[in-house]
Amino acid sequence: MKTPVTGSRRLGKGTLKFVPPAGILATGVVGGPMESQGPLSACLDHAYADQFAGKKTFEKAEREMMLNACYTALNKAGLAPGDVNLFLAGDLLNQTVTSNFCGLELGIPVLGQYGACSTLGQSLALGAMMVSAGYADTVLVAVSSHNGAAERQYRYPTEYGLKRPPWAQWTVTGAGAVLLGSQSQVNITYATPGRVKDLAVRDPFDLGAAMAPAALDTLVTHLEDTGSNMEDYDLVLTGDLGKNGYSLLIDLARSQGVVLGDNLADCGLTIYDLENQQVFSGGSGAACSAIVLLGKILPDLQRGRLHRVLLAATGALHSPTSFQQGENIPSIAHAVRLEGR
Amino acid sequence: MKTPVTGSRRLGKGTLKFVPPAGILATGVVGGPMESQGPLSACLDHAYADQFAGKKTFEKAEREMMLNACYTALNKAGLAPGDVNLFLAGDLLNQTVTSNFCGLELGIPVLGQYGACSTLGQSLALGAMMVSAGYADTVLVAVSSHNGAAERQYRYPTEYGLKRPPWAQWTVTGAGAVLLGSQSQVNITYATPGRVKDLAVRDPFDLGAAMAPAALDTLVTHLEDTGSNMEDYDLVLTGDLGKNGYSLLIDLARSQGVVLGDNLADCGLTIYDLENQQVFSGGSGAACSAIVLLGKILPDLQRGRLHRVLLAATGALHSPTSFQQGENIPSIAHAVRLEGR
Repeated sequence: MKTPVTGSRRLGKGTLKFVPPAGILATGVVGGPMESQGPLSACLDHAYADQFAGKKTFEKAEREMMLNACYTALNKAGLAPGDVNLFLAGDLLNQTVTSNFCGLELGIPVLGQYGACSTLGQSLALGAMMVSAGYADTVLVAVSSHNGAAERQYRYPTEYGLKRPPWAQWTVTGAGAVLLGSQSQVNITYATPGRVKDLAVRDPFDLGAAMAPAALDTLVTHLEDTGSNMEDYDLVLTGDLGKNGYSLLIDLARSQGVVLGDNLADCGLTIYDLENQQVFSGGSGAACSAIVLLGKILPDLQRGRLHRVLLAATGALHSPTSFQQGENIPSIAHAVRLEGR
Repeated sequence: MKTPVTGSRRLGKGTLKFVPPAGILATGVVGGPMESQGPLSACLDHAYADQFAGKKTFEKAEREMMLNACYTALNKAGLAPGDVNLFLAGDLLNQTVTSNFCGLELGIPVLGQYGACSTLGQSLALGAMMVSAGYADTVLVAVSSHNGAAERQYRYPTEYGLKRPPWAQWTVTGAGAVLLGSQSQVNITYATPGRVKDLAVRDPFDLGAAMAPAALDTLVTHLEDTGSNMEDYDLVLTGDLGKNGYSLLIDLARSQGVVLGDNLADCGLTIYDLENQQVFSGGSGAACSAIVLLGKILPDLQRGRLHRVLLAATGALHSPTSFQQGENIPSIAHAVRLEGR
């Protein structure tokens, strides 16, 4: 791997370099019923057997999950909310209402983020920047999604029992929280914020296809900016492309002369058992990459089984309003690099 | 004014200090029909006589306005979109769809922000941080709102002709864009991200009242953190409290022993002629503080008529869903300090 020549905080077309890197101090990861019946059940700090999580609405259940993830991370680090300088949070609900109400409960200053399912990548990038540059000692990052709340808002209420096409993905119910601070066992060393891409996808069930070009653009930019190759990473992880988007990414890359190797994986293809859970093309939602990265991959980085991981968190910028007004569904991807010591 | 003792980038409970400060390189400010008939008509770079702005929907009109504001700022600075490192943008529409589609058109990496009507303060704070710390040479910040699109989404379609209560505010139609870069005539020197506050307001027309406690909390935090007093500012500007929220802010402050002086003003009370334009309690919307700050106040800072201005951009975190589920409307305010050389 070529070490970048410049000592600046900015590399190439658009990659941020964190010197010193921002450390991952602690995480909290929670999931709903489908997530706790899947292959990552042991990766969850808390599993909710009921998607209502003891609340009256899906929206309040999602909030309970994000709060639980936040308090879990705080407890692991031995910190109180008052010890945290900033809360960078986002979710899929309109007005990022989950994040705002969690911010109210926690009492930490909030900067609300919206990057759809890419929000974890976006928030980790901003949080690492704030910590590395000395604007904050400790930042709490949180994202969430809820199958029932998201399906109702973006497509159809799940109670309708609508027949879904085989390329549809299953919105993950759950949340992830990360406390960022001074250098730790695993650190965020670089981030590449993404550009919005539009492959003229017009099917709100086919968001994996919408996101593939954004994932490719951000991956290629990150590799070029940092002078690295795919082989320099133990794992390159896309957010939630699912089967359809994942194979499209590989095709798109090949058509541009980019070879994506065996170290490429997708959180949407990792979180569920695609053979035995009826999730069609795989998982999606802001909590998808959170549960996989924080619950499954991070422990392997901490234990030294993995050394360098690149997450390209993908987000379909789907709006039911703009879609109904005849527009395409554009997408975005934000990359962050995690390295073990 | 006491100069803060520490040389750190972080002061007190939660204020960010920008050393070197981030300069305002250029701005673009556009407004709709109501805005161009009001007292700030001469402050607009472009006035749209029709709220559709030549487009078929309110949503596309809002996008046209944000893009126009962005291109205006870029043209004034002699820059192309490719010269800008990051686009920090937000709006009131679900999934911040205005900002995302503008990001697609501009081709600049996007970090989507959601702080409701406080989004300008939030985005200026993050943009100043990125520029000051060397993560970006040039950042484009943009916010927008549109009366027709916002009323339909948050309350009732304007076509219903619903009778509005006298404490209702008028959502501003327009957009503002700011290019941030190296030190300039006017610079952003400090920012205080806000905490979410809840005064148990349950009326979606009474958002000024919902925002008053957040404005007070952020103002007091900023003054304490930076060791400054109200008298140290030529102008302290709240975002969009309107008549009702403005008088509530003064009452709340008094009850806490804080005296707000004659240098306090509110963008929502500045943008329209409250006597002769039927805007009831005043203006609101993400474009409200943008048009007032960038169109009216910034030129006075550039000409030396004002020297130090504090904006506390206010946002009601109103969600029709959580409101219909019986919850209060919490709010937030983000402060940024602008200083002339």
